[in-house]
Amino acid sequence: MIKVAVLGAKGKMGAQTCQAVAAAGDLELVAALDQGDELTGLTDAGAEVVVDFTRPEVVMDNLAWCIEHGIHAVVGTTGFDEERLATLRAQLDAKPGVGVLIAPNFSIGAVLMMQFSAQAARYYESVEIIELHHPDKVDAPSGTARRTAELIAEARREADSGPIPDATTTGLEGARGADVEGIRVHGIRLRGLVAHQEVLFGDIGETLTIRHDSMHRESFMAGVLLGVRRIVGTPGLTVGLEHFLDLS
Amino acid sequence: MIKVAVLGAKGKMGAQTCQAVAAAGDLELVAALDQGDELTGLTDAGAEVVVDFTRPEVVMDNLAWCIEHGIHAVVGTTGFDEERLATLRAQLDAKPGVGVLIAPNFSIGAVLMMQFSAQAARYYESVEIIELHHPDKVDAPSGTARRTAELIAEARREADSGPIPDATTTGLEGARGADVEGIRVHGIRLRGLVAHQEVLFGDIGETLTIRHDSMHRESFMAGVLLGVRRIVGTPGLTVGLEHFLDLS
Amino acid sequence: MIKVAVLGAKGKMGAQTCQAVAAAGDLELVAALDQGDELTGLTDAGAEVVVDFTRPEVVMDNLAWCIEHGIHAVVGTTGFDEERLATLRAQLDAKPGVGVLIAPNFSIGAVLMMQFSAQAARYYESVEIIELHHPDKVDAPSGTARRTAELIAEARREADSGPIPDATTTGLEGARGADVEGIRVHGIRLRGLVAHQEVLFGDIGETLTIRHDSMHRESFMAGVLLGVRRIVGTPGLTVGLEHFLDLS
Amino acid sequence: MIKVAVLGAKGKMGAQTCQAVAAAGDLELVAALDQGDELTGLTDAGAEVVVDFTRPEVVMDNLAWCIEHGIHAVVGTTGFDEERLATLRAQLDAKPGVGVLIAPNFSIGAVLMMQFSAQAARYYESVEIIELHHPDKVDAPSGTARRTAELIAEARREADSGPIPDATTTGLEGARGADVEGIRVHGIRLRGLVAHQEVLFGDIGETLTIRHDSMHRESFMAGVLLGVRRIVGTPGLTVGLEHFLDLS
Repeated sequence: MIKVAVLGAKGKMGAQTCQAVAAAGDLELVAALDQGDELTGLTDAGAEVVVDFTRPEVVMDNLAWCIEHGIHAVVGTTGFDEERLATLRAQLDAKPGVGVLIAPNFSIGAVLMMQFSAQAARYYESVEIIELHHPDKVDAPSGTARRTAELIAEARREADSGPIPDATTTGLEGARGADVEGIRVHGIRLRGLVAHQEVLFGDIGETLTIRHDSMHRESFMAGVLLGVRRIVGTPGLTVGLEHFLDLS
Repeated sequence: MIKVAVLGAKGKMGAQTCQAVAAAGDLELVAALDQGDELTGLTDAGAEVVVDFTRPEVVMDNLAWCIEHGIHAVVGTTGFDEERLATLRAQLDAKPGVGVLIAPNFSIGAVLMMQFSAQAARYYESVEIIELHHPDKVDAPSGTARRTAELIAEARREADSGPIPDATTTGLEGARGADVEGIRVHGIRLRGLVAHQEVLFGDIGETLTIRHDSMHRESFMAGVLLGVRRIVGTPGLTVGLEHFLDLS
Repeated sequence: MIKVAVLGAKGKMGAQTCQAVAAAGDLELVAALDQGDELTGLTDAGAEVVVDFTRPEVVMDNLAWCIEHGIHAVVGTTGFDEERLATLRAQLDAKPGVGVLIAPNFSIGAVLMMQFSAQAARYYESVEIIELHHPDKVDAPSGTARRTAELIAEARREADSGPIPDATTTGLEGARGADVEGIRVHGIRLRGLVAHQEVLFGDIGETLTIRHDSMHRESFMAGVLLGVRRIVGTPGLTVGLEHFLDLS
Repeated sequence: MIKVAVLGAKGKMGAQTCQAVAAAGDLELVAALDQGDELTGLTDAGAEVVVDFTRPEVVMDNLAWCIEHGIHAVVGTTGFDEERLATLRAQLDAKPGVGVLIAPNFSIGAVLMMQFSAQAARYYESVEIIELHHPDKVDAPSGTARRTAELIAEARREADSGPIPDATTTGLEGARGADVEGIRVHGIRLRGLVAHQEVLFGDIGETLTIRHDSMHRESFMAGVLLGVRRIVGTPGLTVGLEHFLDLS
């Protein structure tokens, strides 16, 4: 039984994490803290792993404290840049054996879709991305679509792929979508949808499609729990859940 | 057995039509004419229906001659505007019993997709169109996608539907596709594809998707033959294959 | 404002209906009755339309009472056979002006999918149905898939369509799905899904796909409200929501 | 320039290979042999790699000769069992530096679909396979679908995955498809289709779909050429094109 504590336990993701940890047979929820609670509650409860779903303003202090006290961390809070990651690496160097996972996306399915897309990219002349979301979303394309496009563009550069063919000369503005590093990305907004993405690869005589459909937040819990189970044996800093997936 | 002649018999569509007519048990191919051949070949052969896949420059003369000689016509040649249709109507008024079908699209599947989309339109808050084609296509979005959007927009106006919800405030240019009468249309270009279209309708808790995949020109023949069989019993001018589909 | 009452108001569908009626600008919820409440509450409240989501054992008494008191009814309760429908018809004959809608399926999307499938059926050599549901469903194929297959089979018989081509001679048991009146139906069960169906039509060089995705019960409310609005002007017995959709 | 020869050059796949090799800038077609031609034509032409699309009865002799003469081979001919593979391994041990690729499937897309499916398998509670083909196919399910199911079943065993959930208790025979090592496989047959497959993974709140659409034989050429380019640097026996894909 791994002893797990949650920081930001009253938020949507934190509360969901508390439930998921409590329901897992190999994990024990020993503390559920939120704003105003003392971090000493973590050591008092004997937490081995902390899951942090708090806010950018407090997460660095939380992590410094956890690393200092030898507690591993799985972090879903946003706002990490290269400077913050460098700070964490230095702190972890001073405490060998402690591990921290920073995960921008806990959806195993979304991470698989991105990894598979990067792997397939070098084998196809054409590729486009369609992301589909509910109409209350304010940004287009989605962050996941942009990230997927970047990974694909990087894989194509490494493979010396030529430009993607496109003979379009006339048409309506916007018809061919947005351009993210040379990859066309289309954002669909439709009542009834939640969060979906389709990556289409094409070459002579064949196409390959990778699609991920995300229906609710609960789907992130498998990724959070995977992070918890793997971080105890993975010292140092890990950025991205993909490093905990066995894809060979 | 209906006696059928083809004008433009050496072109791609004309040649395919000759084969399809010859293979049909209830039709007889009595003449296959092309540039340079005399139209008297049609009456000599006793043609009852002519299928015209010629060019905009000659099609009006062809049709005037056919109507004059009491021969029905099924027309896939492009370039018809309101003026030309008015001319045909006047010629047909003078020859009761003769029928002419002008069909911009002989794909029964594409016509069904458009009809169903127009019918479904009034029942959904959201709708978007994705068309997918080979990367050698020069225009985006496709003519079929534009036509579908127009039909949907018309149906929504008739049903007093409100504006389609879309909270997008930030994003990349083109991410939300092209705007055709208020309907968002996205054009995908991918090696390996031929001609495909998906119409997505969405409302609270559900979505409806109508998709047509067209793999080769041969698929138009069912529509051409349907036109031939129905035009003999449909005097006057008919514009659009949808009028020959039984959709009640 | 149409005055609406709900019978079975504490059940899942009944409760949802109460909310939906209350939220609609042109409808007024005047009574919400459940087991043990007197039907006189309907007349006391001046209900013009009753929505019945009760049980097969009580629905016939409810309807007899409503018809007798000149109240229209929209019925989602199951268990109607020819005998019950005949009884209702006789009761309605005696009270001209009163309307009753019996709807086995209030999902407008599902009804559209079935109607479009029946319309498309005559134009395609091949057709198969794939239904996809959560893995806790006990029956396969789904009732909607069976009903769709029956409608397609009927349309093919009317159009004198030949047998669907299938050269399968060797294989594993069950690989080609279930046979419903000659139509192959495949049932997929997958965690994460809710209720989905895809009808695939195919002919030389093209395919047409109609897909409905139902994510939650709330999606039935549009159909219930449509029934309420239309039943006040539709005397007599109506079986099936499709009669209230404008599909011409 | 790699010097390439084709055995079985008059067959469909062989002829296509000749064209593809001739069109590739980094490959030179030096010999195109068929039944009746002497294998000495290979050494006379200085062939470095042979592509064999012949028949099970002659392929072992062809390969023995090629290995003996230090020519690498890429083999699409069928009929290899463990005994044949052992024979080849022994022959190759005696000629270090020579490489032979035996590939049951040259479609890079199909191989990617299978590899991704095996990788994703351990992360999902549910998985099913839908394969869709033209109606003239005699076996169901397809060989690719069976192979995919075997790979998924193996990955689930390695990951100690529990049984796939399925509450079906009543239904029609065949509705839940065929059972391949515990994985449900559904075969759709539809005029207009060629060769398609969809692998669906599902877990709480999300699904992942990997789909491959194969439209014509030409799509296999990318895999054949990849085999030719890689076999010159890969001594010994390689079974399966997946070993030449960079999937890390």
